[in-house]
Amino acid sequence: MGVTGYTGAETVQCLARHRNARITSLSVRSEEPVKYPSVYPAMGKVVDLECSKINIDDISDKCDVVFLALPHTVSMEYAGTLVERGKKVIDLSADYRLPADVYEKWFGTAHIDKAHLSRAVYGLPELNRDKIRGASFVANPGCYPTSVALALLPIAGILAAKGVEPIIDSKSGTTGAGKKNQANLMFSEVQDNFRCYKANDHQHIPEIESVLSCAAGRDLKVHFTPHLLPIRRGIMSTIYIPHAGFPPAEELHKMYSEKYAKEPFVRVSPPGEFPEIAHVANTNFCDIGIKVARGLIIIVSVLDNLLKGASGQAVENMNIMCGFDEKEGLV
Amino acid sequence: MGVTGYTGAETVQCLARHRNARITSLSVRSEEPVKYPSVYPAMGKVVDLECSKINIDDISDKCDVVFLALPHTVSMEYAGTLVERGKKVIDLSADYRLPADVYEKWFGTAHIDKAHLSRAVYGLPELNRDKIRGASFVANPGCYPTSVALALLPIAGILAAKGVEPIIDSKSGTTGAGKKNQANLMFSEVQDNFRCYKANDHQHIPEIESVLSCAAGRDLKVHFTPHLLPIRRGIMSTIYIPHAGFPPAEELHKMYSEKYAKEPFVRVSPPGEFPEIAHVANTNFCDIGIKVARGLIIIVSVLDNLLKGASGQAVENMNIMCGFDEKEGLV
Amino acid sequence: MGVTGYTGAETVQCLARHRNARITSLSVRSEEPVKYPSVYPAMGKVVDLECSKINIDDISDKCDVVFLALPHTVSMEYAGTLVERGKKVIDLSADYRLPADVYEKWFGTAHIDKAHLSRAVYGLPELNRDKIRGASFVANPGCYPTSVALALLPIAGILAAKGVEPIIDSKSGTTGAGKKNQANLMFSEVQDNFRCYKANDHQHIPEIESVLSCAAGRDLKVHFTPHLLPIRRGIMSTIYIPHAGFPPAEELHKMYSEKYAKEPFVRVSPPGEFPEIAHVANTNFCDIGIKVARGLIIIVSVLDNLLKGASGQAVENMNIMCGFDEKEGLV
Amino acid sequence: MGVTGYTGAETVQCLARHRNARITSLSVRSEEPVKYPSVYPAMGKVVDLECSKINIDDISDKCDVVFLALPHTVSMEYAGTLVERGKKVIDLSADYRLPADVYEKWFGTAHIDKAHLSRAVYGLPELNRDKIRGASFVANPGCYPTSVALALLPIAGILAAKGVEPIIDSKSGTTGAGKKNQANLMFSEVQDNFRCYKANDHQHIPEIESVLSCAAGRDLKVHFTPHLLPIRRGIMSTIYIPHAGFPPAEELHKMYSEKYAKEPFVRVSPPGEFPEIAHVANTNFCDIGIKVARGLIIIVSVLDNLLKGASGQAVENMNIMCGFDEKEGLV
Repeated sequence: MGVTGYTGAETVQCLARHRNARITSLSVRSEEPVKYPSVYPAMGKVVDLECSKINIDDISDKCDVVFLALPHTVSMEYAGTLVERGKKVIDLSADYRLPADVYEKWFGTAHIDKAHLSRAVYGLPELNRDKIRGASFVANPGCYPTSVALALLPIAGILAAKGVEPIIDSKSGTTGAGKKNQANLMFSEVQDNFRCYKANDHQHIPEIESVLSCAAGRDLKVHFTPHLLPIRRGIMSTIYIPHAGFPPAEELHKMYSEKYAKEPFVRVSPPGEFPEIAHVANTNFCDIGIKVARGLIIIVSVLDNLLKGASGQAVENMNIMCGFDEKEGLV
Repeated sequence: MGVTGYTGAETVQCLARHRNARITSLSVRSEEPVKYPSVYPAMGKVVDLECSKINIDDISDKCDVVFLALPHTVSMEYAGTLVERGKKVIDLSADYRLPADVYEKWFGTAHIDKAHLSRAVYGLPELNRDKIRGASFVANPGCYPTSVALALLPIAGILAAKGVEPIIDSKSGTTGAGKKNQANLMFSEVQDNFRCYKANDHQHIPEIESVLSCAAGRDLKVHFTPHLLPIRRGIMSTIYIPHAGFPPAEELHKMYSEKYAKEPFVRVSPPGEFPEIAHVANTNFCDIGIKVARGLIIIVSVLDNLLKGASGQAVENMNIMCGFDEKEGLV
Repeated sequence: MGVTGYTGAETVQCLARHRNARITSLSVRSEEPVKYPSVYPAMGKVVDLECSKINIDDISDKCDVVFLALPHTVSMEYAGTLVERGKKVIDLSADYRLPADVYEKWFGTAHIDKAHLSRAVYGLPELNRDKIRGASFVANPGCYPTSVALALLPIAGILAAKGVEPIIDSKSGTTGAGKKNQANLMFSEVQDNFRCYKANDHQHIPEIESVLSCAAGRDLKVHFTPHLLPIRRGIMSTIYIPHAGFPPAEELHKMYSEKYAKEPFVRVSPPGEFPEIAHVANTNFCDIGIKVARGLIIIVSVLDNLLKGASGQAVENMNIMCGFDEKEGLV
Repeated sequence: MGVTGYTGAETVQCLARHRNARITSLSVRSEEPVKYPSVYPAMGKVVDLECSKINIDDISDKCDVVFLALPHTVSMEYAGTLVERGKKVIDLSADYRLPADVYEKWFGTAHIDKAHLSRAVYGLPELNRDKIRGASFVANPGCYPTSVALALLPIAGILAAKGVEPIIDSKSGTTGAGKKNQANLMFSEVQDNFRCYKANDHQHIPEIESVLSCAAGRDLKVHFTPHLLPIRRGIMSTIYIPHAGFPPAEELHKMYSEKYAKEPFVRVSPPGEFPEIAHVANTNFCDIGIKVARGLIIIVSVLDNLLKGASGQAVENMNIMCGFDEKEGLV
């Protein structure tokens, strides 16, 4: 559902090459029925299905798993019904990632499906793989939160214990903003430019704090400032933490390496080296580097906002929920 | 007038550093009055004037020269009145560049100011400098037509005499499309992309044919296909003409060099070399290269669509109309 | 062989997700042995093999199929030996695409393996699929030639019969130039820029003429001028042909549609529409559009120079040679 | 001197439109004499001088003011001699910005002109305008240091008094790295990419600490991590400081506004707003924004690394040294 946006299209592309999945329904909120390649010419001879207006009965008939690639506040109109009908549901919006009161505060709108909020498992496999396995409803993490959570999971406990508030400077490509005709997203306004927005005031902050607090077992606060990069895909988060009271550099690196050694989609850079966005663009990987210099721990994480930051992770969640190879459709 | 669009803002910038000009009025069609830097922060401490809604009486009171950086079909609502009031008027739109019937055919709308059409001088200094000198009303050329006309002026006579129809493959940066919130001009849709549009069907074709026919003294036909480059500023036109019946390469190059030797804003590349868009970006120059290879004449011209292709040429026209140094404000 | 260049790395990536292939050897000309991900961090947890210096005996032992992603003039040092040892060989360089005399004229160097030249099948599946099926040695086509050949194959016969010489204006991304530290390929020199090079004088001209002449059954001449786009991947060829003497637009479109209806990697745009580079980037497709306007046939073809223009087509050739599904590893 | 690099060429361009300057000598380290436009075609019909090999006698004869746009370690071979001969010297390299011992530690090479180190005035007009006025030798600040120093000057005293160490996350365009054929600066490696380098370990750190300590009157330490943006021109520094112990947001903003009210080239954004790189690209301005959110002061400064970060500031220094209008040649 919602296949004309960027995350919808990316999900379709992952599923098109998935050996255990067959795409049976493509839908959107408001368009007349059209052949999918007439909207996305790149899908010609790949996915030639018709894309029609959302019809929950029809979707329920045709699908075992439903991906909701809908805007925030729209997903919650549909997700509950699909869950009730026994579908496996993966929601890519922010609608089921936060407690209702926090959601309402940061998104400035009432939550209309509180009944199903508690049934949604937060779909970060590196944190919740076991819960995801048994789940029928997954709230797929946001792009920024995934990039920050994976960068801090190994030390979330120490951060929380010490009450240290990491400073996170993130930079994202333009597809993270979705497919909107917005003046400040026009090519002439973005190319050769770079800008900061919603400094320490972004609606992803409660999600970041929530997942890290959950991992740490106690409250943890972060400072988070995003920027817009003149690229289409990719996020880098550069994170700053005072080194005092933390293990030495080698030990920190070892903590990360061990934590992620068996993870299929997280890679830790060699000691002192940092990953670049190009290393992960068009992949489902999140790469992480750690360095200690002049009294500061600096952690850099990169991922593709449309894959590990959205659609790739959604398909990864489907793989876990359905017992498929976790990497299927994603390499 | 129209200072919030790209050509309007560029004109303001040229005038801000012009020794003989003082900006006295900034206006737009529909906005509430605002300080200009609140729309264009780049103009802070440079042009701090208020930008208000178009008021012809007020503009007439304050200005000797008026630049119309308005969309096609809007300029013709105002230009006539200003001309009647004795202002020097430079119109950057396409409204006064073509005979009424041709205009109406290609722009699909009635011309509402035919009375002043014949008073407008086509403002290409390299063709019409003497006429511009005495003019009070100038139709400033289009960006593509300037790039093509300057590339073909030296051989327009031969082309027309032989009935040869040059094939023109042009490529433009995105600011040529103006400041519009259009889906296919979003950064996510333009970056890493390249597309062809209005192939041999673009509304600049009659302007190109008109100026070249005028230079040749007889009718001349061209084939013109534009493309959209993932850059903000700059146009390249690559032009193909069968060599048969034309002078040899050296002589052709000499014709161009001599024609443009004293022109302040046209440069001819050394024999066999071609100019690049970077050579002219942010300048008022048009650079031209000529090569003969395997029976084909290949001519490449480049210019900055916002300067020599619009605002720079408009200020150049003001300089000629007012008897200023032609380069003032433009180097 | 040659896995640190762009086409080498892209081939590795296609093979990494290929169900019928297993990568057993990665080699380069001059480097010390290193883990592949230390050169290409993107390949971490994907292809962790060591990359060592070329050793033909070792390669012969380990491989059934060998891809040569080596520079021109280097491939011919190795290809013959591998063919003699019964390996299936796919050469991505230009060394085996042309008759020796033509090669020597355009590449300015002697051909040192004339003995195997005639055994190499030109690997354009849309022209030579049957020959490729039985071949053990394939000369993989160049990126520009593929984009032009597929655009003109359906009308090559008419062109040759009429002696019409199409004018081809091509534009390529920077990876087409390979991984070279060249001053004019630096980011600061390419970004915001666009340039024309080797106008009607490029070493791909004989390959284009050769493949089209072969398809037409008689000699055919083209005019070909490439340009450098500020993008990494993708080629567009815009081709101009006088319409006189050709079938009407609808019939032309039908000729293309029918010719390519069953081709897995060629798509024809709807009548009057043109494809964009973004439609084919990161895919093995070549998309083609045809339009007739004002007496001119305009054909636009786009492909990804690293996939259908190089590595993707190489793997496609392997699939045909080995009897695999032609699309395996490529969707 | 050094006019073929990016800062050299930019200086030439500023001087070419300067009403009080005449360019009399262009020189480089190693090239044969050539007309300047044959290296920089953009300078055709603007600066047609010959560019020859450095000859100090010749330069001394021809010039009153000499700009050294040479690499670090090269400037100190020439600067002293020119100063001794009574020339006004402006050095754009890092050679005279630091005490000898600090220089030698961070640049890993001996300083060979300690004699003149103490005569060089650090050319940040907003800090040292009076000293620059009387100076004959100016060490022009680095691009990152200028962006950070201007962002922190108004609160340097508080920072030092409290011992607070600001965390600085900077992002620069590629021309900041100079005109080098370096593998990781190739277009194919930079486009669509973003990377962090020399995290808290960059040779500009001592310069930043030195200028801020000088302004504060006591030692001040910073944490500085730069990144490479896929743009050609522009730097943004995002700076994080805990708000505790600092004045409230409105008062902070007022401190900045008042400090810079009369500065010709520093602009403070409205409260809560941040500047973008596009606001200052191709200008000599440094724009600064301040925001307080969730207990953190966030300061964003932007400038064009080739203008206010190098050549523009160099010409500004010449203007001050020579008693010209400080803005001449720079608007």
